[in-house]
Amino acid sequence: MQIEDRLTSAIEICAEAGRLALDKFRDRPSLVVEAKGRQDWVSEADRGVEALIRERLADAWPDDAVVGEEYAASEGRSGFTWVIDPIDGTTNFVQEIPAWCVVLACVQGPEIVAGVIHDPVHGETFAARAGGGAFLNGRPMSVATDTALDSGTVGVGYSNRVDAAKTVPLIETLIGTGAMFHRNASGALSLAYVASGRLLGYVEQHMNAWDCLAGQLLIREARGRVEDQDAQAMIEDGGRVIASGPLAFDALRDMAIEAWAD
Amino acid sequence: MQIEDRLTSAIEICAEAGRLALDKFRDRPSLVVEAKGRQDWVSEADRGVEALIRERLADAWPDDAVVGEEYAASEGRSGFTWVIDPIDGTTNFVQEIPAWCVVLACVQGPEIVAGVIHDPVHGETFAARAGGGAFLNGRPMSVATDTALDSGTVGVGYSNRVDAAKTVPLIETLIGTGAMFHRNASGALSLAYVASGRLLGYVEQHMNAWDCLAGQLLIREARGRVEDQDAQAMIEDGGRVIASGPLAFDALRDMAIEAWAD
Repeated sequence: MQIEDRLTSAIEICAEAGRLALDKFRDRPSLVVEAKGRQDWVSEADRGVEALIRERLADAWPDDAVVGEEYAASEGRSGFTWVIDPIDGTTNFVQEIPAWCVVLACVQGPEIVAGVIHDPVHGETFAARAGGGAFLNGRPMSVATDTALDSGTVGVGYSNRVDAAKTVPLIETLIGTGAMFHRNASGALSLAYVASGRLLGYVEQHMNAWDCLAGQLLIREARGRVEDQDAQAMIEDGGRVIASGPLAFDALRDMAIEAWAD
Repeated sequence: MQIEDRLTSAIEICAEAGRLALDKFRDRPSLVVEAKGRQDWVSEADRGVEALIRERLADAWPDDAVVGEEYAASEGRSGFTWVIDPIDGTTNFVQEIPAWCVVLACVQGPEIVAGVIHDPVHGETFAARAGGGAFLNGRPMSVATDTALDSGTVGVGYSNRVDAAKTVPLIETLIGTGAMFHRNASGALSLAYVASGRLLGYVEQHMNAWDCLAGQLLIREARGRVEDQDAQAMIEDGGRVIASGPLAFDALRDMAIEAWAD
C-alpha cells in the first residue's frame, strides 16, 4: 500500500504541476528564460513547477527524501526518494514547441517503485508501479511487442553532457538497419512513447535520473526491456539508457554500446 | 484579390479538413492503415481528408488544377494549381504521436502564391500569401532573425526516397557547429516551426511539393531565407529544401550541399 499510495499521490501532484506549467507555456512571451550553459536552458517555469512539487511532497510524504533538477536534494528517513524533473524538454518549452512533460519517480533502495510522466498539453498521464503494470490515462498500455528495428522508429537523445559526435555512428547504424530515428528533445516523453508503443525504442548515452527513472519503469511494466541499473547510482551519476520493445532490444543495445565505446 | 481570396479559402478548407483528420486521430484504434512501401504508411484518414479538400476546391475554384499526395492530378485552366498534403507526418499520425498537419499550397507559374499549414491537435494555423507576410492564427510571425547555428536547433528530415546515409554527415557537421538537431517526422510542421522562430532551420535532401511548398512560402514571408526554386519543377520532381533564419542560412546551405554531394 505504501507504494500504491505514493503512485496515487504522484499522479495527483503531476496533474497540478502540469496545470501550472501549461499556464506558463501558454503565456510564453512573459516567461523569463536563462541559459544554464551552451544550449541548456532554464526558465522560471522549471523552478516554479519544481517548487510546487516539492511543497506537495513535503506535505504528503514528509519523511521521504527529494532530488530534483533545479534545487538541492533534501534528506529523508523513510527509505523512499522522490526524483523530480519539473519540465523535461525545456528547450521545446521555451521555444513554444508542444513536446515536453512533468516527470516524477519514486525510488526505494536500488529499485524504481513508481513513475509518472505527465504531458499536460495533450492531457496524457503515463504511470506505472513496480509489479503493477503500466497505464496511459488509467488504461493498460504496452510497448510494441511485435516490431523489429526495420519497421519501427527509435528515439535518439543527446545532450551537451556527452561527446555529441558519438550520437552520429549510432544514427548511422540505426539507419543501416532500416529503422527510422526521431529526436524530439524530450527524453522522458520519448520514453513514455516507447512504453505506449508509439516509438519502438529509445537510446541516450547519458541521462540524469530525473529524466529517465520514471520512463524506465514505465517501459519495464509495459512489457518492454530496459537495462538493469541501480537507481541510487543513477541518482548519483546518471547513466546510459537503452530501452525498447522485446524484439528490438538486443540489436539496439549492441549498436549503442559499439557507438558509444571510446 | 484572386490570391487573397484563395488564401482565405485555403484557411477555411484546412480548418474543415483538420477537424476530419482530428476525429480520425482520436479514434486511432479503428483506423485502417496500409504500407505503401518500407516505412511508408497511408491510412484511410489520408485518403478521406484529401478527398474532402479536393471536393471543396472543386466547388470554390473549379478552374484550378489540383495535385495531391494520394490521388491523380486534375487539370485546370486558370493558371493556378493547388498542392495538397492531407496529412503530413503520417507515421506520427498512425502511431498516435501528436505531430502532424494538413498542408495546402497554391502555385501560379513558377511562384508559390499562398500556403497554409494547419495543426488541428494544437489549434495552430500558419498561413502566408506572397508579398503579404506570414501569420500564426492571424498574428504576424517571424523566423529567428538573431540566432546563429550554435545557439539554435535545426530540423533534419529524410525519407526512403533518398540514400538516408547522407543524412549522417549532415548531422555530424551540424553537431560540430554546436547546433542541436531535431527530427519530428513531419517536415511541413518543422517548416512551420522555422517560420514561427521555434526551430532555427530545416534541411531535407528530397521533399515532395506537397510537403514543402507551403512551408517555403511561410518562411520567406516570415523574413527567413529559402533557396529559389521553380514551383512547377518542384511539382514535377520535388527537390531539396534548405531554409532558415537569415544568420544561419549560408552556413547551413554549405554544409547540406557538401553532405549530399555524390
